[in-house]
Amino acid sequence: MSRQKVFLDKMARTFQIRNMLLRQALAECLGTLILVMFGCGAVAQLVLSGGSHGMFLTVNFAFGFAATLGILVCGQVSGGHLNPAVTFALCLLGREPWRKFPVYFFFQTLGAFLGSGVIFGMYFDALWDYGHGTLIVEGTNATAGIFATYPSKHLTLINGFFDQMIGTAALIVCILAIVDPYNNPIPRGLEAFTVGFVVLVIGLSMGFNSGYAVNPARDLGPRVFTALAGWGSEVFTTKAYWFFVPIFAPFIGALVGVVVYQLMVGYHIEGEMRDKKEAEEAEEKERLKLSDVTSKEMA
Amino acid sequence: MSRQKVFLDKMARTFQIRNMLLRQALAECLGTLILVMFGCGAVAQLVLSGGSHGMFLTVNFAFGFAATLGILVCGQVSGGHLNPAVTFALCLLGREPWRKFPVYFFFQTLGAFLGSGVIFGMYFDALWDYGHGTLIVEGTNATAGIFATYPSKHLTLINGFFDQMIGTAALIVCILAIVDPYNNPIPRGLEAFTVGFVVLVIGLSMGFNSGYAVNPARDLGPRVFTALAGWGSEVFTTKAYWFFVPIFAPFIGALVGVVVYQLMVGYHIEGEMRDKKEAEEAEEKERLKLSDVTSKEMA
Amino acid sequence: MSRQKVFLDKMARTFQIRNMLLRQALAECLGTLILVMFGCGAVAQLVLSGGSHGMFLTVNFAFGFAATLGILVCGQVSGGHLNPAVTFALCLLGREPWRKFPVYFFFQTLGAFLGSGVIFGMYFDALWDYGHGTLIVEGTNATAGIFATYPSKHLTLINGFFDQMIGTAALIVCILAIVDPYNNPIPRGLEAFTVGFVVLVIGLSMGFNSGYAVNPARDLGPRVFTALAGWGSEVFTTKAYWFFVPIFAPFIGALVGVVVYQLMVGYHIEGEMRDKKEAEEAEEKERLKLSDVTSKEMA
Amino acid sequence: MSRQKVFLDKMARTFQIRNMLLRQALAECLGTLILVMFGCGAVAQLVLSGGSHGMFLTVNFAFGFAATLGILVCGQVSGGHLNPAVTFALCLLGREPWRKFPVYFFFQTLGAFLGSGVIFGMYFDALWDYGHGTLIVEGTNATAGIFATYPSKHLTLINGFFDQMIGTAALIVCILAIVDPYNNPIPRGLEAFTVGFVVLVIGLSMGFNSGYAVNPARDLGPRVFTALAGWGSEVFTTKAYWFFVPIFAPFIGALVGVVVYQLMVGYHIEGEMRDKKEAEEAEEKERLKLSDVTSKEMA
Repeated sequence: MSRQKVFLDKMARTFQIRNMLLRQALAECLGTLILVMFGCGAVAQLVLSGGSHGMFLTVNFAFGFAATLGILVCGQVSGGHLNPAVTFALCLLGREPWRKFPVYFFFQTLGAFLGSGVIFGMYFDALWDYGHGTLIVEGTNATAGIFATYPSKHLTLINGFFDQMIGTAALIVCILAIVDPYNNPIPRGLEAFTVGFVVLVIGLSMGFNSGYAVNPARDLGPRVFTALAGWGSEVFTTKAYWFFVPIFAPFIGALVGVVVYQLMVGYHIEGEMRDKKEAEEAEEKERLKLSDVTSKEMA
Repeated sequence: MSRQKVFLDKMARTFQIRNMLLRQALAECLGTLILVMFGCGAVAQLVLSGGSHGMFLTVNFAFGFAATLGILVCGQVSGGHLNPAVTFALCLLGREPWRKFPVYFFFQTLGAFLGSGVIFGMYFDALWDYGHGTLIVEGTNATAGIFATYPSKHLTLINGFFDQMIGTAALIVCILAIVDPYNNPIPRGLEAFTVGFVVLVIGLSMGFNSGYAVNPARDLGPRVFTALAGWGSEVFTTKAYWFFVPIFAPFIGALVGVVVYQLMVGYHIEGEMRDKKEAEEAEEKERLKLSDVTSKEMA
Repeated sequence: MSRQKVFLDKMARTFQIRNMLLRQALAECLGTLILVMFGCGAVAQLVLSGGSHGMFLTVNFAFGFAATLGILVCGQVSGGHLNPAVTFALCLLGREPWRKFPVYFFFQTLGAFLGSGVIFGMYFDALWDYGHGTLIVEGTNATAGIFATYPSKHLTLINGFFDQMIGTAALIVCILAIVDPYNNPIPRGLEAFTVGFVVLVIGLSMGFNSGYAVNPARDLGPRVFTALAGWGSEVFTTKAYWFFVPIFAPFIGALVGVVVYQLMVGYHIEGEMRDKKEAEEAEEKERLKLSDVTSKEMA
Repeated sequence: MSRQKVFLDKMARTFQIRNMLLRQALAECLGTLILVMFGCGAVAQLVLSGGSHGMFLTVNFAFGFAATLGILVCGQVSGGHLNPAVTFALCLLGREPWRKFPVYFFFQTLGAFLGSGVIFGMYFDALWDYGHGTLIVEGTNATAGIFATYPSKHLTLINGFFDQMIGTAALIVCILAIVDPYNNPIPRGLEAFTVGFVVLVIGLSMGFNSGYAVNPARDLGPRVFTALAGWGSEVFTTKAYWFFVPIFAPFIGALVGVVVYQLMVGYHIEGEMRDKKEAEEAEEKERLKLSDVTSKEMA
């Protein structure tokens, strides 16, 4: 074995983590980092270039394909949720244990925090150049919207809450269809791409009100980062404490999405499978009883 | 079994629908809801943002990928037509029973109605803001075109009818090629994506005349919704009762599409398979006759 | 059997064509019709809407995905060339017989002719509206460029010839890689999508000089159509008989593409396979000879 | 055998190269040629058309899909790196031998040089037309940026170095996830498409600072070409010898990417496999020992 192989092998053994939940948490962290790095990077490119190197469509593409790439990087390890609302929906359906929820939530938010940090570093010169030496939350040359989401002028808090709820419900309905074990519509291995399409379409049609966070971690992580990095606590207090909306509305939306999908499609396919299975079991039982009777008679 | 599992199981049993046609109708309803929600949502985003958050291309992408997602959500249950003209074409070819047609038509229209309702709720503030407190069908700040389609100024009714007919015929030719059982050009499971591409391309090249409804349900459902939601009956009477065109022309287009595809590709592949089968059967018969003769001679 | 089934079966038997070459020619015709209908439709939408319903990117998308759909519709029957330059390249490599070339060329051109006819009908009102009642070849409000290609102002004939040659060579190199039997880089069934990507990328990077026909049929068919439909013979004589360039340059380009691909990749993979086969055959022969010797000695 | 077949066979035998490394180098050369031809072609189209035939998004699409096509053309032969930083990362991980690195680097750069040459020829008229008869490196009507990358005004050298480093690290993390033998998230044969998506997303979100070369060959080859073709040595000296950055920063970025991916995902999956294997081996050994003991006892 060459010296390189020996070194690589030693590294691999030293840094291997054997705790499954920690590994999953780390993977979710990297996946969400990628989602936010590429997604917020596209917003940064659009805002800081003054529109010459981007438009709203490029942001939609970036968030969509970033979701795909984030899921590809971590999906085999952690399932590739990248979004506490997705984890919540899967826990609601009993497909993930509830104890995963807080851990995933924390590491997804951490990944989003780190991802916005990378973009902050990458566009450091451009940010200061654009803001003429200041980091502004609202008004002309504002740059806080690169990282977290803020509502448009026309939006009331109630409509904003509904907006985030509907957006997340739409996301969850589509994701449930894509990963439903009883309704497998796409070839194995294309789930990540399809979820990317969902995120893209949500951006194309539900992005005008408040920038379609539909993901508490994607919004909270970067918001905390901006608060620490120089934009200050205004990122939380502005627009009547708007930051609450993209944290809480998505969970209500996840619940709505689960109920809608299950009532309109899920329960019926699931039930069909269960009916089939129960019919088979009943038949089996019947046969056993009969053979029991026969053997008794024979005895 | 945990309390959550017990609860979930009870829910599943309570809400399961066993009637197949009703399940299919519900699935079509949800699929069309998704199509219209994302599609009209993109139009809303384009119109209400005054072009800052969208352009005609984003509407094309949204309708295309929304068709994909709608099919993915309901395709395993109902076939994922999302469009009465598609149901009509499959009935014409004898691949679906005619009794499905009115049921699917109704539930597809219902889904489109509900989908436009969701977008109405989501962009409620933005709609009133844009219309300065009114919901306008025609002229500056008109918003009815977000939901149903209206013809461009240059378009006559006859050209409009031809436009919807051609658009639907193109859609049907491509769909028939994609789902032809004798001509399987794509890997299983990619049909939904390919149909999405068809819808996208139709929008890229046939959208200027009147917004490429090419789908009676997608146009009628939202039109009824706008009539009820405050735009009034003008949505039906405007432009010389235009609303008739996207309801009837697609069915003629579906017929044209079926005829063109069958004459130029379909019949010949289908016939080849039939010829092969018949040749095999004839050979089989011949052999049976011979062996019959032989056995008689031997007797 | 229901009356519908009887009728459908009778239709199928009446219109079935059994001549293989004619069926392939018809399929190529329909495929090229779809390519040109969607592709030129997108140009029409861009030009006639004055840019509000399209941009150069949408034309690129439309031609790319139209190529995909055209191939999907006819690929199983005819191979889905849609382009005489592709047929030519495959004949050069001995993968298609030369007698197919003139037949395919004619039917591809016919399909392109019909496809531009469909777009002419679909945008009839818009064409007359845009040209204020005339069909103009050059200058303000020109519409001939919707159907056939014309060079930009800066382009000389020599550079134009080189442009079409390079574009076609790039197309052929990529197509050969995609369909090379010894170098199968993509899953079966995705060829059509990948060729669509190639056409898209050519449009994104090689479309500025003269609109990337890279296909004699796609240019000649619509040009003949415009000559007949009212634009007149100027479509042939304008720009120093430019129409010769997109007819002849692509064939030179196809030759260049074949040579480049074969020299840099094709011959070596192909040769490796041949070497392996010959080695096996030689071994086999050796063994036979040995056993021959042995049996002789034994005798 | 027809005369054509004989001729083709003779050609194939004459030009076949049997040296594996040379074949791989040629394939990399053609792949990188395609990447740069389509990618820089799109920049040329954007710049020379003054924005009428392109925008930054089209450049992103072109580079993304060009990467896909480049990989498809050469991937089966050489692995489809197209980028010395990718080769470097795979050497670091011990998946490619170090002796390949300089060879690939040279031929990738040569391919990029040739690819920019093709675009220079294709847009020859347009280049002279745009520059009014001169080839300009900086300022109004500059055309050097079509081929190599130059930093934006706001960018310092340090931020530029960080920019290239981060961009390459992001590329490498995603590529490692896609090709990780222990973490196979996508169907075989879609790697090229997925890498294309990665390049696209990097362009959408990391392209504003200095045009996301993230590839020493893609930048150096065209820069050398422009130096020779008439732009002169200014292409090297401008912006404080900027050309050093896209040559060296990507290698640091590749190292960072390898470390991040391995620490957060790679080592743990890899280790799990190794643990499993070792456990099996240990069990096997144990069994052998036992049977040894048994047989001794039996003896």
